[in-house]
Amino acid sequence: MSEHFFDQAVALQPDGDNAFRGAAHPAWANMVGPFGGITAASALNGVLSHPKLLGVPIALTVNYAAALGAGPYRLAAVPVRTNRSTQHWTLAMTQPGADGAEETVLTATAVTAVRRDTWSQNDQPMPAAPPPQEAERLTPFGVEWLERYDMRPVHGIVPSTWDGRGDHSLTQLWVRDEPGRPLDFLSLASLADVFYPRVWLRRATRVPAGTVSITTYFHADAALLARTGTGYLFGQAQAQAFRNGFFDQTAQLWNEGGELLATSHQIVYYKE
Amino acid sequence: MSEHFFDQAVALQPDGDNAFRGAAHPAWANMVGPFGGITAASALNGVLSHPKLLGVPIALTVNYAAALGAGPYRLAAVPVRTNRSTQHWTLAMTQPGADGAEETVLTATAVTAVRRDTWSQNDQPMPAAPPPQEAERLTPFGVEWLERYDMRPVHGIVPSTWDGRGDHSLTQLWVRDEPGRPLDFLSLASLADVFYPRVWLRRATRVPAGTVSITTYFHADAALLARTGTGYLFGQAQAQAFRNGFFDQTAQLWNEGGELLATSHQIVYYKE
Repeated sequence: MSEHFFDQAVALQPDGDNAFRGAAHPAWANMVGPFGGITAASALNGVLSHPKLLGVPIALTVNYAAALGAGPYRLAAVPVRTNRSTQHWTLAMTQPGADGAEETVLTATAVTAVRRDTWSQNDQPMPAAPPPQEAERLTPFGVEWLERYDMRPVHGIVPSTWDGRGDHSLTQLWVRDEPGRPLDFLSLASLADVFYPRVWLRRATRVPAGTVSITTYFHADAALLARTGTGYLFGQAQAQAFRNGFFDQTAQLWNEGGELLATSHQIVYYKE
Repeated sequence: MSEHFFDQAVALQPDGDNAFRGAAHPAWANMVGPFGGITAASALNGVLSHPKLLGVPIALTVNYAAALGAGPYRLAAVPVRTNRSTQHWTLAMTQPGADGAEETVLTATAVTAVRRDTWSQNDQPMPAAPPPQEAERLTPFGVEWLERYDMRPVHGIVPSTWDGRGDHSLTQLWVRDEPGRPLDFLSLASLADVFYPRVWLRRATRVPAGTVSITTYFHADAALLARTGTGYLFGQAQAQAFRNGFFDQTAQLWNEGGELLATSHQIVYYKE
């Protein structure tokens, strides 16, 4: 069996201390460059592949400075501070620009930590929804990366008519890798970005839009990932403000058992 | 009239290209090191003071790698990528460690942008609440920085008895600088962090807790800041998940007119 498209896309080769080489994968192509989720996962892979890694991911912020080009990229992943139980990372992806000099296409920071068993509580219950088997699978529309996910919207599907009559920004859906792949921190980081631009839904108008910065907090540990396996995740995304060129999005991802795996936020550029 | 404590605390002196010097101010002391909000604002000031700045703040992520010490710090602020209308920044605060070598105490990223007038929409209405004049001012409890704010809780005040009986994590309050100071991007960045640890409220139990990473999205532009002036902000904060040593917090800040100024998220370490 050939390697899963996800693993092909996030693959990195070590390139000296604190650096790796990788390349965008055509199976994850978006309108311009690859799907942002797979790029975020590739950056996180620099942390998880690093020989000095302490613990598991707690927080990841990725800033998209420019579209990732088709050729190879260099990923710097530096553990700038290691404490007793937490570790702080800075990341940067670069590619040669028009003049051949390396240019920054992505910056990121991450925090990893050794988790300890403590009092725990889910304060964001999973909304009521029909099971994934009863929801209709989304037909991918026009961009390659959508083929990589089995998405089953239950609320706030992409408008079928662009008539400017939108009245809310909430999408809820079931989603999993296609074909199935056991959930790990990398795929969770990618899944946090599967929602189409909220401005399309809110306005029922398709305008150019692209994520500028995304932050994901990981509430899952290895045991919770293992319990989730290849099951569907329930995802929810909603905007809070659209203001003069930028809107935000808050998102949550639960497993089928209603356990909150990750919460995520992003700020997105939009035109007009 | 002497300079406002806020301006004293965020003050920076240029220290060559892409760097500044500053120092924590005792008026903003927290239990360990200064209040995180003022440190985030100081980092952002490195962006706003930089001669190459393009536009206004859109996103700021600050990672607290270690407690900021009493002495001077060095702040590196680098515009790593400048596009036509957006600019990407990486920031790092360092201080000499025990052996005299510079150690990272904070990392951050920021995005600034030239905003353009577009269709805009507030999708997160301000909750109903009594006006600030009818809410009782919080009596500062034990840490110096609380004296710097006029906080008027209307929901989810700090528990008066630590009896382990908490049942929610929502705090709502009116807040402004004390004494009054016209709102700017720096004070907004600081105000996004004024909420006490959600775990104290949720459990009615006081356990050690500290912010590890905070991200703030700015929805206000200069005109909105000017409209807000020295008025109160209405702030709301709530946790989504507490899990094995870390909980998250989502927060919103509106002005008295109900305009959403900023949304913010943080992940917080807690013990036990």
